[in-house]
Amino acid sequence: VHTDELTLASTDLLVEGIHFDFAYSEPQDVGFKCIAVNVSDIAAMGGRASTALVSLGAPAETSLALWDGVVAGMIEAAGACGVAIAGGDCSVAPVLTINVAVLGRPSTSGIVARSGARPGDLLCVTGALGAAAAGLELLRSAGPDPFLRALLEQFPDLAKSHRRPPLRGAAGQAAAVAGATAMIDISDGLARDACHIAEASRCGVVIRAEKIPLAPGVAEVASALDVDSMRLAAGGGEDYELAIAIPAAAEPALAAAIAPLPLTVVGEFGGSERVLRSADEAVPLDKLGWEHFT
Amino acid sequence: VHTDELTLASTDLLVEGIHFDFAYSEPQDVGFKCIAVNVSDIAAMGGRASTALVSLGAPAETSLALWDGVVAGMIEAAGACGVAIAGGDCSVAPVLTINVAVLGRPSTSGIVARSGARPGDLLCVTGALGAAAAGLELLRSAGPDPFLRALLEQFPDLAKSHRRPPLRGAAGQAAAVAGATAMIDISDGLARDACHIAEASRCGVVIRAEKIPLAPGVAEVASALDVDSMRLAAGGGEDYELAIAIPAAAEPALAAAIAPLPLTVVGEFGGSERVLRSADEAVPLDKLGWEHFT
Repeated sequence: VHTDELTLASTDLLVEGIHFDFAYSEPQDVGFKCIAVNVSDIAAMGGRASTALVSLGAPAETSLALWDGVVAGMIEAAGACGVAIAGGDCSVAPVLTINVAVLGRPSTSGIVARSGARPGDLLCVTGALGAAAAGLELLRSAGPDPFLRALLEQFPDLAKSHRRPPLRGAAGQAAAVAGATAMIDISDGLARDACHIAEASRCGVVIRAEKIPLAPGVAEVASALDVDSMRLAAGGGEDYELAIAIPAAAEPALAAAIAPLPLTVVGEFGGSERVLRSADEAVPLDKLGWEHFT
Repeated sequence: VHTDELTLASTDLLVEGIHFDFAYSEPQDVGFKCIAVNVSDIAAMGGRASTALVSLGAPAETSLALWDGVVAGMIEAAGACGVAIAGGDCSVAPVLTINVAVLGRPSTSGIVARSGARPGDLLCVTGALGAAAAGLELLRSAGPDPFLRALLEQFPDLAKSHRRPPLRGAAGQAAAVAGATAMIDISDGLARDACHIAEASRCGVVIRAEKIPLAPGVAEVASALDVDSMRLAAGGGEDYELAIAIPAAAEPALAAAIAPLPLTVVGEFGGSERVLRSADEAVPLDKLGWEHFT
C-alpha cells in the first residue's frame, strides 16, 4: 500500500438483518454496497480511496453461491472506484457480517473535514434525495400489494438506490478543489448529517424543505405509504449523496465541475438554530433521521 | 494518520462465541485481545503499528458495563503498543462483534514477508508455546473439578495467555533488523503457521518436536486432560508468539537483541517435506492445527 504523507481511513461494520436483508438485495448488491459506503466516507473528505481490507463473517453453512455473489459485488464496486482489495479476514459468525476498512489519500487541496463550515456558507447536496429510503420502505411494504408492486416497477431506481449507493468520489474531489469548507456523505439522512456538520463547525444551519431535490418516485411512494415525503428525503438516510458546505461565490464553479450531476442549494449555515424550515413549521434537525440503537 | 512511503495494514473480525467467550474472559480481556492480535500481525512483518480503526457491533440490550470493559481493554492494549485508536463504527449485531483494522509502518530494514525463507534458514520461536491452548482447554473443562481448578490456580499464566496475548512488537522489529527472512505470528499453531511460511517460500520445513519450548503447566494440563502436549504446543494456536525464519549466522544476534525473551531454534527450512518430527514419527504439518470452518 503506497501512500503519500497522509492517509485517510474509514471502517464500517455491516450486519445481515441490520444493514442489509437478502429479502430485498442480491448478494452481489450487498457486496457492492459494503465497498461503496466506505469509499463514500473517503469521498466525503475530498479524498481518493485506494485500498480496501475486507473481513467476512458467515455461518458455516453459508452457500458458496452467496459468498461468490458478495465477493463479486465487492470486486465490481472496487473496480468502479479504482480501489484495490488488498487483504482481509474470514471467520464464522452467526449471520453474514462484513467489515470493510478503506484507506485513501486526500486531494491536492487537502482534507475537507466536517468542522470547517462558516456562517454564510451554503449547504448544497449532490443528486436527489429520498430514493434509498423510499425504495427500502417500498420493498418492505409491497408484499403482494398490486399498487405498491406497480410503483416498484414504475420507479426501479428506488430499489436500486437502496441496493447500490451512488459513487460520488469524483464529486467529492471536485468539491475539495472548488473550496468546500465541510462535507459529509448522507448516510443518516440530510437533516442529521447537516446537523453533524453544524455541530462540528459550531454554527447553526437552516435547511429549506421546499429546496430539497426529491428523487423521482419519492413523492408517489410517500403518498402511497402515507408518510411525509420530507421524512424520506431529509430523514431517510442512506442516499450516500454528498452534503457540502461551500462559500456562495464558489458554488457555481462546483456546480459546473460536477455537471450533469445536479448540485442543489438546500440551505445556509449560520444563525443559532439547526432546523428544517417549511412554510408552516421549523423542526429541529436532531428530531429527524435514522439512528442506531433505536 | 501520518505515514511514510509504505503502510502496513491488518484486519481481523472477532465474534463472540467463536473467538471469545465471556464465560472465560472479562470484557476488558476481550478488548485487549482484539487490539493485540492485530498489532501482532504488524509485528510479524517487522513493523510498528500506529493506528487502529475499531468497529463494534452488539445487541441493543448490551450493558454499558460490558461496552465500557471492552473499550477499556482496547485502550489499555493500544496504550501498551503505542497505537492510537483513530476512529471506528458502532452498530447493532446479534452477538458482540468486533473488527479491528491496524495500520503501521515497516521497520527501516523493510518488510519481512512470509515468503522469504530459504533452505538452510533456521525456524525459531519467541517465548514458549502451548499456554493459550492449554489455558482455554482448562477453562472449558474445569467446571467444578477440584483437580483441574487447582491446575488453573497453580498455573495462572495459562488462562492469562488465552485472555491476553503477549505483545511482541519489539521482538518483531528486532527480527527485521537482525535479518529475518520470513516471519509470522503464531495464531493457528506453530505447525500450521510454519507451514504457511514454507508454502509461501516454496520450500520444505522440519520442526523437531523435542525442541519446542513448552510453557510452564502445558505438560501438566496435557496429562490431566489426556491430550498430547505437542498438540497443544504445536497445534493449539493463539500463542501469538513469533515464528521466525533466519539464517543460522544471524540467530545469535537476534537472541541477544530480544533477551530476556527466549528465542528457541525449533527446526530448519529446506528439504521436500513439511513435517513435525519426533522420535517415533513424522506428522505432516497440514494435519495439525486449528482451522476455520471445521
